[in-house]
This record gives sequence, structure tokens and C-alpha cells, in this order.
Amino acid sequence: GQNLRLRGGAEQRLYHFGSGKADGSRHMLVSLGNKGANLAEMSNLGVNVPPGFTLTTSVCDEYNSQGKTMPANLMTEVLASIKNIETQMGQTFGTADKPLLLAVRSGAAVSMPGMMDTVLNIGLNDQVVAGLASSTSDRFAYDSYRRLLAMFGEVVLGLEAGAFEAQMDLVREEVGVDDDSMLTGEDMKVIVGRFKEIYSQNGVSLPEDPKVQLEMAITKVFDSWDNARSVEYRNIHDITSTTGTAVNVQAMVFGNLGSTSGTGVLFSRNPSTGENHLYGEFLLDAQGEDVVAGVRTPSPIALLEKTMPEVYKELLANVEKLEAHFGDMQDVEFTIQDQKLFLLQCRSGKRTGQAAVRIAVEMFKEGAMTKDVAITKVQGQHLDQLLHPQFANEEAYSERVVGRGLPASPGAAVGQIVFTSAEAQMIRAQGGAAILVRGDTSPEDVGGMHASEGILTQRGGMTSHAAVVARGWGKTCVVGCMEMQVDDVSKTFTLGGKTFKSGDWISLNGNSGDVIDGKEPLSPPILAGDLGTFMGWVDEKRRLQVYANADTPEDAAEARRNGATGIGLVRTEHMFYSSEERLTAVRKMIMADTCEQRSEALEKLLPYQRADFEGIFRAMDGCHVTIRLLDPPLHEFLPSGNMEDVCAMIASEHSISSEAVLDKLNRLSEVNPMLGFRGCRLGVVFPEISAMQARGIFEAALSAKAKGWVSVPNIMVPLVGCVKEFETQAKVIRDTAAKVFAEKGDSIDFKVGALVEIPRACLIAGQIAKTADFFSFGTNDLTQMTFGFSRDDMGTFLPTYLAQGILQKDPFQQLDTEGVGELIKMTVDRARAVNPDVTFGVSGEHGGDPSSIKFFDSIGIDYVSCSAFRVPIARLAAAKAAVEAK
Amino acid sequence: GQNLRLRGGAEQRLYHFGSGKADGSRHMLVSLGNKGANLAEMSNLGVNVPPGFTLTTSVCDEYNSQGKTMPANLMTEVLASIKNIETQMGQTFGTADKPLLLAVRSGAAVSMPGMMDTVLNIGLNDQVVAGLASSTSDRFAYDSYRRLLAMFGEVVLGLEAGAFEAQMDLVREEVGVDDDSMLTGEDMKVIVGRFKEIYSQNGVSLPEDPKVQLEMAITKVFDSWDNARSVEYRNIHDITSTTGTAVNVQAMVFGNLGSTSGTGVLFSRNPSTGENHLYGEFLLDAQGEDVVAGVRTPSPIALLEKTMPEVYKELLANVEKLEAHFGDMQDVEFTIQDQKLFLLQCRSGKRTGQAAVRIAVEMFKEGAMTKDVAITKVQGQHLDQLLHPQFANEEAYSERVVGRGLPASPGAAVGQIVFTSAEAQMIRAQGGAAILVRGDTSPEDVGGMHASEGILTQRGGMTSHAAVVARGWGKTCVVGCMEMQVDDVSKTFTLGGKTFKSGDWISLNGNSGDVIDGKEPLSPPILAGDLGTFMGWVDEKRRLQVYANADTPEDAAEARRNGATGIGLVRTEHMFYSSEERLTAVRKMIMADTCEQRSEALEKLLPYQRADFEGIFRAMDGCHVTIRLLDPPLHEFLPSGNMEDVCAMIASEHSISSEAVLDKLNRLSEVNPMLGFRGCRLGVVFPEISAMQARGIFEAALSAKAKGWVSVPNIMVPLVGCVKEFETQAKVIRDTAAKVFAEKGDSIDFKVGALVEIPRACLIAGQIAKTADFFSFGTNDLTQMTFGFSRDDMGTFLPTYLAQGILQKDPFQQLDTEGVGELIKMTVDRARAVNPDVTFGVSGEHGGDPSSIKFFDSIGIDYVSCSAFRVPIARLAAAKAAVEAK
Ligand SMILES: [Mg+2]
Ligand SMILES: [Mg+2]
Repeated sequence: GQNLRLRGGAEQRLYHFGSGKADGSRHMLVSLGNKGANLAEMSNLGVNVPPGFTLTTSVCDEYNSQGKTMPANLMTEVLASIKNIETQMGQTFGTADKPLLLAVRSGAAVSMPGMMDTVLNIGLNDQVVAGLASSTSDRFAYDSYRRLLAMFGEVVLGLEAGAFEAQMDLVREEVGVDDDSMLTGEDMKVIVGRFKEIYSQNGVSLPEDPKVQLEMAITKVFDSWDNARSVEYRNIHDITSTTGTAVNVQAMVFGNLGSTSGTGVLFSRNPSTGENHLYGEFLLDAQGEDVVAGVRTPSPIALLEKTMPEVYKELLANVEKLEAHFGDMQDVEFTIQDQKLFLLQCRSGKRTGQAAVRIAVEMFKEGAMTKDVAITKVQGQHLDQLLHPQFANEEAYSERVVGRGLPASPGAAVGQIVFTSAEAQMIRAQGGAAILVRGDTSPEDVGGMHASEGILTQRGGMTSHAAVVARGWGKTCVVGCMEMQVDDVSKTFTLGGKTFKSGDWISLNGNSGDVIDGKEPLSPPILAGDLGTFMGWVDEKRRLQVYANADTPEDAAEARRNGATGIGLVRTEHMFYSSEERLTAVRKMIMADTCEQRSEALEKLLPYQRADFEGIFRAMDGCHVTIRLLDPPLHEFLPSGNMEDVCAMIASEHSISSEAVLDKLNRLSEVNPMLGFRGCRLGVVFPEISAMQARGIFEAALSAKAKGWVSVPNIMVPLVGCVKEFETQAKVIRDTAAKVFAEKGDSIDFKVGALVEIPRACLIAGQIAKTADFFSFGTNDLTQMTFGFSRDDMGTFLPTYLAQGILQKDPFQQLDTEGVGELIKMTVDRARAVNPDVTFGVSGEHGGDPSSIKFFDSIGIDYVSCSAFRVPIARLAAAKAAVEAK
Repeated sequence: GQNLRLRGGAEQRLYHFGSGKADGSRHMLVSLGNKGANLAEMSNLGVNVPPGFTLTTSVCDEYNSQGKTMPANLMTEVLASIKNIETQMGQTFGTADKPLLLAVRSGAAVSMPGMMDTVLNIGLNDQVVAGLASSTSDRFAYDSYRRLLAMFGEVVLGLEAGAFEAQMDLVREEVGVDDDSMLTGEDMKVIVGRFKEIYSQNGVSLPEDPKVQLEMAITKVFDSWDNARSVEYRNIHDITSTTGTAVNVQAMVFGNLGSTSGTGVLFSRNPSTGENHLYGEFLLDAQGEDVVAGVRTPSPIALLEKTMPEVYKELLANVEKLEAHFGDMQDVEFTIQDQKLFLLQCRSGKRTGQAAVRIAVEMFKEGAMTKDVAITKVQGQHLDQLLHPQFANEEAYSERVVGRGLPASPGAAVGQIVFTSAEAQMIRAQGGAAILVRGDTSPEDVGGMHASEGILTQRGGMTSHAAVVARGWGKTCVVGCMEMQVDDVSKTFTLGGKTFKSGDWISLNGNSGDVIDGKEPLSPPILAGDLGTFMGWVDEKRRLQVYANADTPEDAAEARRNGATGIGLVRTEHMFYSSEERLTAVRKMIMADTCEQRSEALEKLLPYQRADFEGIFRAMDGCHVTIRLLDPPLHEFLPSGNMEDVCAMIASEHSISSEAVLDKLNRLSEVNPMLGFRGCRLGVVFPEISAMQARGIFEAALSAKAKGWVSVPNIMVPLVGCVKEFETQAKVIRDTAAKVFAEKGDSIDFKVGALVEIPRACLIAGQIAKTADFFSFGTNDLTQMTFGFSRDDMGTFLPTYLAQGILQKDPFQQLDTEGVGELIKMTVDRARAVNPDVTFGVSGEHGGDPSSIKFFDSIGIDYVSCSAFRVPIARLAAAKAAVEAK
């Protein structure tokens, strides 16, 4: 039905390229596929590509929708087009004299690795190969022939790949060589014979007629579009936009025809440093695979200028043209056949962080790209590399790697092994460097984690406690190192057959997960001058503000250095963990039976909170500081371990009976703590806690004001689900403000807002907006509740979900725009409709994820907040979002 | 601003009633308040009410919005209206000769108990009381005077109530009587003197001028509208529709003026049985309080016909008129003052279940109401009463009550105490009756709970496991009996100072929570013939289908008897608990390391499932049966207790090492099981489980078909959050169907649907609807996730939330229409837009809650499903929803 217009013959179904011109261009991606569009574009630029043509995706669709029959007259058209190729190459398809060989490759609009069928060297048979041998060599001709036999056999006829490999092995053994490059022309003839036997054992044969070979190969590529594997791949990856694969038929060219031929790869600029010079290597008398295989050592590209000056000049001109045209540093593959240069492929080149920034800045200065484009050329991981210390030489340590875990937080760390927080803090106090090694970590370990250079755990995944906390601080962390056996009693661990003890030196690579025995040299973060220039452009282009999450004055200072213009999340309870005295006061509060006892315990906490807040206000002078009231369930503040010991400890600490403690602990224990007595539920039941925290904030802000610092506290009520939860807590905060302001005879501006992390809050956002000054989205909890996933427990099924494509991404790393994102958008729309002055922020981990930031930008969020170390990456992502939205 | 129109004088602000006419009517509820509108209506009907007038709610609003100043000329208008009352009563306000006394009462449009101010006997002073005494008696006159002093003092002047009560106590002591009725006129004079002293001690006095008394009382009622208490009440109860209280000023009438006076209460029909005859009692020479106080024994109303035939005739005529007019059985208060009948109040009378049904049926037959109205006159709890066994005589056992818990599931149960499931099952097997007594219950106890007549627990609330399961079965249950001490080791419990042991008889009242020592006689459910007639009308009027939740063939049969037309939820895993053999097979499946081992274990479960399904299909011949695939986390199937013992037990059961078991159990243990590895997540990771269950269903359905029964399985995928979860599970089910149909050479109709209980499923409902035949809302889980509440843990804060009005209702009992309801509506709208054929059901507990059912009806749900015992109540609620929607 939908392809009738094709059968009418009006639509062009075959697009030529080669000889400096093409029917298509890179704008015809949907029709020509990725590969076809790119070949056309190069051709149009006058770059010499092996000539050929592309059958459009519509042709494939027609083939499939007509019950897999070849569209009428298609082969006639194909064969007519081959005449073109013959003319350009000075070769003839199917003749023994100067035979033309063809490559047939699939090429869909969206890349589908693993389902792309390719057949090379089409056009050979017993006659043609003999002719080819006489004009080149037996070695070359029969090597090409055996490749055709194996590839055609596997791909088109469905023979087992193993059978061909087994024969290759056998011949190598018989001849006594290790490597194919040492096989002679005679050996290749033997292999061709053996391969033909495999064909006849399976009752098939290679079609003698090259035209039949070609048609069968094209048909096979069409078929591959809707085989089970491809359909499944598209289902999993939700690829619905395209309706078939394009097919590229292209002349074969050879770099292994002697010393006037060769092959190579190069970059238009140095991909390590970004310097503007040709960077790459080549081999004479070689094929593409040989450069990669590493059997022969390639020569630096500069040498080509001496060997073949004309070719080099042409190559340089082509590369410059491609870089200018595509507006980016290019990665190019080329082949020289008998002094004639062919470019096989070009694409934007991969580069280091340092190179990415330098190239972007220099290409802008050269007028080769706009600032908008420059911003799109630097990726988040480029900045990540630049902002963490790295090992000076990663290759140097390979023999000292004793194990590998999951690379949970990037960078490199070197230090002495410790097993407890106390040890870590002691080493830190002495000016040393510690690596904390644990089975896994819990909130009690945060003091020690903070005092360490890096963290290594046996258990846990990319979203485990250790991983999340370490990423928050930009601290190197390797988790889930399963082979490691940790013995906390003897303070040792074994890994890679070696036993390590407290005080031994190890090094961690947070980019790769490597655990290295000994002290590996580090190089400091590379903060080249170009980075400053580049980040200036980033800030100029972005609309979204970037705030940071910070729990201490030190975090806040770090955030500000990284360009944060406010604090989006202060987790007040983290202040409670930071000393044993504080934890004792918190436990006293938990054990309180009456409001009076609780208030007494809170009195003790007030000075700590006030001092910490004042430090943060000082560091963030002039900025908004968003503070979340107490959030976690109270049982999180209790020590872990044997219940009896814990009870006895708390009982003696607060002079109450062990039974009373046990009773209290039993009442606090929860089946689903995530959905329990936490967040503003604590503040509603114990408003004196919220009042103490608000007092700490306002007293600190007034004290800061007296010292000349401007602070704008944004006080945030966590886990709001009912409008009255917010209203009662907002009243406690505002009443406390009035009281403190009256006592001190001074006042400051402040805001009261809701942390939106319960689906219900999104639905009633209009009601909350009546009394809220701002909303902050706690996307971690919101994702948990919207999916009904517990981050602590999803390890059982998440790997299966990702492998089967039930989920495309871990929704805790990249925001689920379809579900969670819709709730966020609904919140923004409903709240703005009621109160246009309300502002919106994001304080979950998604605030530092580029693709999530793009979404937040698109729905009109005002700021994102992330860990201090991710602030530059978030700034970049915000700028890209703004540029891409144009 | 908004009251300008009032000041213009155009709007009537005072409405008269009395003498068989009135300015207002019952349709002026908003303006006249509840009491005022009703007095007007009675008056209009020619019923003799003490004359008076109502100041509208707008007057109160004007007073308050003008800074609490009396609207211009209001008192002039009031005093002019008093002339009317004087004329009708033949009395004069403020004179000693035949003085008129007035009552001033507030009366808002929405009832606000506890904030209603009332002042009676206004118009007395030292002169007036003397005059009143001379025309009546000292006793009567000074009793009235001391009442005015106390009430005016408390309500208007804010004196302490305790001071007046203390003086009453003192006088009673001095005179040596226990009861006020024994105080003489002289005693009353003493009291009046003492009360005046309280006034002067507080520096206030009762205004001499009755007009001033009246104005102050009216002002006070106006003031009460926005005192702190009232504002808080309206906030908590979300009353925003009204802007003030009405004030009723009405003549006082007295039934205690001798033997030609009297007072009484009556019902127009018998409220216990529903029989159509006057039912009530009266006292001569008495005031209203005396009838209720029980000091004198009232006479049956029939006696009045002999005592005062004319008055009786008039009363009868009035009651008949009121019943006909209001179209319902009436509860009437009356006073006879000197042979003159006054009706003080009429309202629809409270009645038993039996009476409710009989009255509805008979009044329809009499032509006094339509079927639609008849349906609104019977409440859910009326049916509940009719459908459970009750104690024959609740008053008889009062001295044997040993304790009281929460009435978690209604009805009455009598049995022998057991402490374990095994004991319960043994007694049941012997034909006996057991009451299971536990600290609390867990899924392991369900066998024993099912085998018991009733369940009693020490801990847990209305939504605890025991409560939910028991309500599901309509089994009597009392939970949270905190004074009870259960000792599982010695198999005893103590309660009410007595120790009970295994085998002792107790009785439970599930309506009141009473725990009764011994064997109390029961009466069977009252299933009068009227009930059948009435339920026929219910089914005729409703649009919603009512299905039942049923896990066994017995449950299904019970559901059908109660009128269910389908099964909305079969929890397949409940079949796994029902024997030790089955649990062993389930544990084998859990311990499996490979798909093969798992399939082997599943083979063992298949015959059980098939047999159970066939039983259900048989019971539900011709109906839809909705079956939920395995839902709970696997660790729920493991025995509880000491970890070492459990491991050893499982290890020996399945011949594996204890370490391997421990490792498996550790991997299964979860921090937040509610959000963990459960629902379709199990089926996605282990599709062989879903395939086994689907096979069981299809084989059972084909076997049932062979026996002549028609079954339509609706297979439901639980906990869907991602569209691909549903798609992969639906494919497993449909593929299994095709396989089984091919094997058996026969087929049946079936449907595949999604259980919507994750917020994300609501957002992507349009996607799911593409491949789903139906949606069922699991409102329990959906409420948990939308609020972020865990039912197991919310006991810590829910009581505070309800007390503070943060929540109006427990959202697990009554659907939260604002949050959860909006998600459900969104789901229906999005799914229908994509697939108009998709059907919608509700299978959470809300499916049996009348107010939730009304909401489900309004958004176009197709059926609700509830426990078998609630089916009649749900049918009634569905009919009411349909009638009210007209
Ligand atoms: Mg949170
Ligand atoms: Mg559920």
C-alpha cells in the first residue's frame, strides 16, 4: 500500500557517488543510510572515494513488503550503474582482464551494530581469479578469493563460520606458520580448494556468474533488515523511525599491491593534546587490518611526505577540506592503490579532554566554528578527565594490577590502606593519604570516607552507598571488587593472590576500576588556560543556573570554585554524623519520650547547626543556599551491630534501661524504611525538630549579616505529599523566623519551599504553590516512588532489565522523561498556573547528568544542583541544552 | 467589599417561622443553616413549632467583615420580630406578667459539633423571675433562672463552667440530695444567689435588660464563627463553602408545667424491626433532658392516646405529615405545654439493618418513595449487620467483657482459644470452632486464620495483616488489644486480670472490639425476604459490575452466593501457602540456581495450580475470572524464625549446603521489600514461572470446558511500570496459550491485562493499552506508592496525621480521589483514547468502600472487586452512585 508511489517508478532508487560528485548528500540520511550519505558527501566535496552507488532504504522496504521479491527492473538498473564504476576504475566486472571487484554493505539510518551484513571481493570465480593473479600476484588474488568464499559462504549461504576457520588453522599448522601474512600464494590456493570442499559437503557452490553473486548479496542484505535478530534489536532500542536498510555497492581498492600502494589512518589534529597538526600512521603494501593488527610497525604520517609527496599533498588537502566542511577534527581512513589515493571513511575523531577543549577554542579562533558549535564539541567526560587527578602513565602499572572492580567515581587515588574511619582520620590528621577498604559502607563510615583519598569496597554497584557518596565528593571510588576478601578483624584483605595489611600502599583507578599494588605516580588535574576561556562561553550561553549540593563549608567553597552560583541542597543531617558528640545528642533526641526531653536534646544540637550554617553562608556570600530539613528515618542515626550491645551502649549513654531502649528501637524499626517515618513526617509529628533547625538557620544568617555577608536561606520541607504537611511545616518555619527576628532586632530575606519527591506532590502542585516560594525536585526519591523501585534492592533485576531492553538506561542515572519527567513537567505547569513567581530546582543526582539537564532546560526549570565536582559538567550540559534548543 | 449588597438593605436578613407558616424553607440551607431551614420547613407544613426567626449566615458574615460591629438597625428589626413571637405565644418579652423566654442558637449550613453556642431562658431578671414564679412555681422559675445565669456566664461572659458546677455540688451536699430533681424552689433560690456571687467575684453581672441579654447572646454566636476553635475545625474539615453561621431566636416552651404538660421522643416506624407503627415514649410534667436521663421511667407513646387523646391525634397527624413530606421514617422530639403540642425537631431516624431494608421496601410499596430514593435509605453498615452473625443479646454479656481491642472485622465469633495454625486446623477438622490468638499475624498464619472462627491479636491496627485478611474473608477479628499479654511458649494469655489457656472458650464482638470470657449465644444472619426484593432493585439500578476477590473454589462459591458476577482477583500465591507440600515445592523453586532446576520445581506446582483453577472455573461457570500472576517477593515463602534453623531446615529439605542456602537468603533479603524484586519483575527475570502459571490456567480452562463449564480467564500481570514488562509477559502468556491449545486440540477465549499499581503505569497507560485487553487497579499498592507510605510502617505517624487533619481519612480505607484518584482517571482517559475496547476494574480494598465506589462509577470504571462478604455492600454502593449521578 504505502509503497505504490515507488512502483510508479517516479522515485529515484539508486544514488551514485565517486569521481568528485554524487547524487545524494549527508542530508539524505533517512534515504541513503549513514554510510551512503557520508560517502555521497565526501564525493561531492571532490574527495576521491572508491566509486559506487547506494540503493535507498525505500527499495529495501519495497522488497520486504512485496514478500521478499526483487523490485521490478532493479537488477537491470544496478548492472547499468556498474558500468559507471567500471569506467571510473578502468576495470571490468566479471572479466579476467583487470577485473572489478565489489563490496556490498548494508547501511541503515540508525546504527545497528551486529546486524550489518557485508560481503567483500564480489566478482571473483576460477577464471577471474587467474586473470587477477597474472596482473598482480597469486598471493593477492587467491587471498582475495578465499576471503570471498568464506564471507559469501557465511553471510549469504549461511554456512558455519567455524568450518572455514578450522581449515585455516589446519593449513597454518601444516605449513608451520603462526600468521596469515606468512602464507604464500600456493598456500592460498590450497585454502581455496579446502573452502570449495566445505561448499560441496554442504551441497552448495559459489555462483560462477559474478552478477548472480552480486544479486544474492544484495538480497541477503535486504533480508537482514527483518531477521529475528534485527527486529529484536530495533524493539529493544525503540527504533521505529526507519523502514529498511540502504545497500552500498562500491568498488574494492587495495593497498597491498606493492610499494606504490599502502593504507593508513590519521587525525586532522592531535587527539591527545589538540595541537593543530596531522597526526597518524601508515603502512606501505598493506591492507587496513594490518595497521590495526600490530604485526608490522606503521610509520608516522609525516614520513609519507617523503615517500609519496604528491599523494601526501593530496591527502593533506583532502583532510583540511573535510575538517573545514564538517567543522570538526576528523578521523580519516585512506588507501593508496598504485599511487592513487582513496579515502574510505571520515568521521569526527575521538579525543582526550585536553584536546577537546583546545580544539574547540582554537577552531573558534580560526573562524572554523561558532561558539555554539564549539560548545557541542566538548563532552561531559572530557571535563571530567580534566578535573580529576590522573595517573601519569596508565600503561606503566599494568603488571601491578591485582584486581578490578566497578569504576564508581573517576580519578586516581594513592594511599595507605585503612579499614576504619578512625584510622583514616588519623592518617589524614598526620598529613598522610589513606585508602579506605570495606566490605561495603554505611552512613557511619562517611567521616572516614571523607578523610580518605579513595574508597575500595568488595560489594555494591554503581549506585551503592559508597559510590553515591564518593561521586558526590568527586572522590575516587572502586566498588564491587568481588574477588577481594576483606577481614576486618585481622585488618587484612586478599586480592590477586596477595594479602594486604593496614598501612600498605595501594593505588585506585576510578576510571577503569583497576586496583594497583603500590604507590603509582599521579599527574595533577590539567587546567589549561583554554579551559577558562571555554567555560566562559559556556556560562554566556546557558539559561539554567547551576547550583551545587554541599553539606559543609568546605563543600560549599569547592562548589563555588567550580562555578556554582548557589547551593541547591544542604542535607542538614549530614552535620549530625560529623562527630561522636553530635551523634550522642541526636540519639538523646531519638530516645526522648516527651516533647520537653526532645527539646532539651535539640538545644544541644542547635549550636552545631548554627555554626555549620554560618560557615556555609560565609562561603556562599551573596548566593541562595537551599537547606533541607531533617530527612532520614531516625533509626539511621543508631549504631549498627549486635542489638544487645547497641541497646546497652545507648542505655548507659542516656541513663535509661536497656529494655526501654529496646522497646524504642523496636518501634523505630521499619519494614520499608524508604516509605516510612521520615522527611516532613518527622517534622509534623515532632515540630520542635523543624523549629530548632529553622532557628539554627535564622540565627546563623543574622550572625553572618552582622559580619557583612549576604545570605538568602531557602528552607526546604522534604517528602511533601499532602498540602497540609507543607503548610504546617512552613508555618513552623515562618513563625520561628518571626520569633528570631524579634529577638535579634534584625531580619533577612528567606524562602520556604517543598521538596517534591512523592508522586502525589506532583498531582497537588497547584495547592502547594499557593504557599510555597519554590519547588525542588528530589529526583532520586521521585524515581524510586514513580517506578516502585528501591535503589537498594534493584540489583536483583536491573541487570536483566537493561540486558533485555525493558529499560534503556538506569533511571537513577538518566532521568526517565516519559514517566518521572512527565510528573515533573506536570508539577511545573500546575504550580506556575497558580503562582507564576514560584521557582523550580532539581536536587537529585540527575542534576548532574547531561541528558537529564537537557530535559530540565526544555521544561523551564530554573536551576539544577549537583555535587561540587560535577558543576562544570552541568554548566556545559546546560549550555548545550540552550544551544540545541535554538 | 463582597457584602455591599447587604448594606443596601435589599436582601432579607431575618426569616420568621411558627404558626403554620414561614418565610424560608428547607431549600434555603446555605442562608438559614441546617436548624433554621428545618424549622421553616416544619412551620410551612402547619406543624406547630415554638415561633421564632432566623438571622441569615450573610448577617454573620457582614458582622465579622465589618470588624465585629452589629449591622445597622439589625437590633431594631430583631426587636420588632419579637413582637410577632409575643403575639403567637400570648407572652411578653421582659415583663413579669406572662414573660416570654427566648432561646438563641447558632446553626451553620454544615454541622460543626463542638462550636455551636446556645443560650437558653433569655429574658429573666430578678423582677421577671418573680412574676414567672407566681404564675408557675418557685421551683420552675428559679431553676430556669439559675440555668440562664450559668449558661450566659459561661457562653457569653466566658466565666468558668467549673465554678457553677462546684456550687451545685455544694448545695446538693448541704441539702443532702443526689439529684437535681429533688432540689426545691428554695434550694434553687439559694443557687441563684450563689451564682450571682460568682458573677460579682469576676466583676461582671447579668444585664438586667432582657434586650441587652438578647443582643449579647446574638453577638456571641456571631463571634463564635471565627474564633480559633471554629477556624481550626473548618480548616481540618476543609469547610470553605459557607461564610457565617445563622442565628435562631425562638420562644422557650416547657413540658414541666404540671400534669397537662409533658415531653417525649418518637419514631414514625419501629427503628429495630421497621414495622409501620408509632414507636416512642413520653413523660408528663417533665423537660426534654428528663426523658434521656432515665431518672423516671417514661411511658410508651401509645399511653398518650388515653391521657391526652386530642394531643395524641394531633401528634400522629403531624408525624404522618412529616414522614410523607420528608419521605423517610422520622425521629421527632415534642413538648406539650398546657395541652398545647409543640414539635421541637424532626429528622430521619436511625435504624437497624433489618428496619432499614423493611422500611425502604414498604415505603416504596406504599408509594411513599421511588426505588431510587429507597436505595439511598439503606446504608452499607445496614447490610453488614444483616450479613454477619451477631450475638443474640449484647447487653447480656457486659459483665463478662475482659478487654477491648479495635473492631477490625465485624460480626460475632465464639470458639476455643488456639495459639497456632496447626491447633486451629485440628479443631476445625474435628468440627469444632477455634479463635486464633496471636501477638500479630503474618502470611504464615493464613492457614490457621482461615480455619478459625475469629482472630484476636495484641498488636496491629485497622489495616494490619490480621485485619486485612480477616475482612477479606468476612471473618470476625479484633486487633490491637494492647492490654493482652500473649505467651506463645506456655500457650496462655492474660487479659482483664484473668489467664486464659489453649482450649478455653472465648467470644469476640467484631463490631465493638469486645473480648468476652466464655461461650456467648449467637443468632444467625437475618436474611428476611425484603432483602431479596431490595437487592433486586439495587442490581436493576447500578451500572458498575461487582466482582469478588477469591483465592479458592470455596471463596468463589461464597462470592457468587453474595451476588458477584465475576472474580476480579485470584492471588495465585495464596494457593502456595495452603499445604506444606506446596511450600516445599515453592522453596525448591526459590533455591534453584538454573532455569532447569527451577522448571523442575515448577513442574511440581503445576498440578496444584491447575486443580485450584479448575475448581474456581467450576464455581464461576460463565463468568470472567481475573487471575494475578505470582506477586510477592520470594522471601515471603520462607519460614520465619532463627536464621540458622531456617537454613538448616531448607538445606536438609533440598539436599544442599547450609552455606548455599544462607547465601541465597542473603541475596533475597531486601531493605524495602515493597519496592523490590516482586510482581512482574519475577516473571521478567524468570519467565518460566509465568509460563507455568499460564499453563495451569489454560489446562484448567480446557478441562473445565470438557466438563461443560464456560470459563473466561483474565490473566493479569502485576506491578507493571514499563510497557516492555507488560509486553514480554503478555507474550509469554499468549505463547503458552497457543502451545497448550495446540497440544489439546481445543481453545478458549481469554484476556491479558495489566495490574496498575505503580504510578508510572498510569503515566504510560496509552502505551500499555496498545497490547492490553484490560486494566485492573491495585489501589492498595498504588496508594502506597503515590503517597510514599508503607502500610506496615505508617502506624508511627498516621494517628497524628488524622488528628491534625493533615489527612481527612486513612487513604487505604477511602480512596484519595485528589491524588491516587487523579492517576486512575488519567489512566482511564489515556488508555481509552488509544484503545476504546479496553476494560477497567478495581481490585484493591477500595473496591468495597462505598465512597470510593462512587468515585469509580463517576470516572467510568467497568467493575469493582472486593472480598466476597462485601459484595452486597458494594452492589448497594454502586446502585447509590448510579442513582446519585442522575
Ligand atoms: Mg529524598
Ligand atoms: Mg499489589
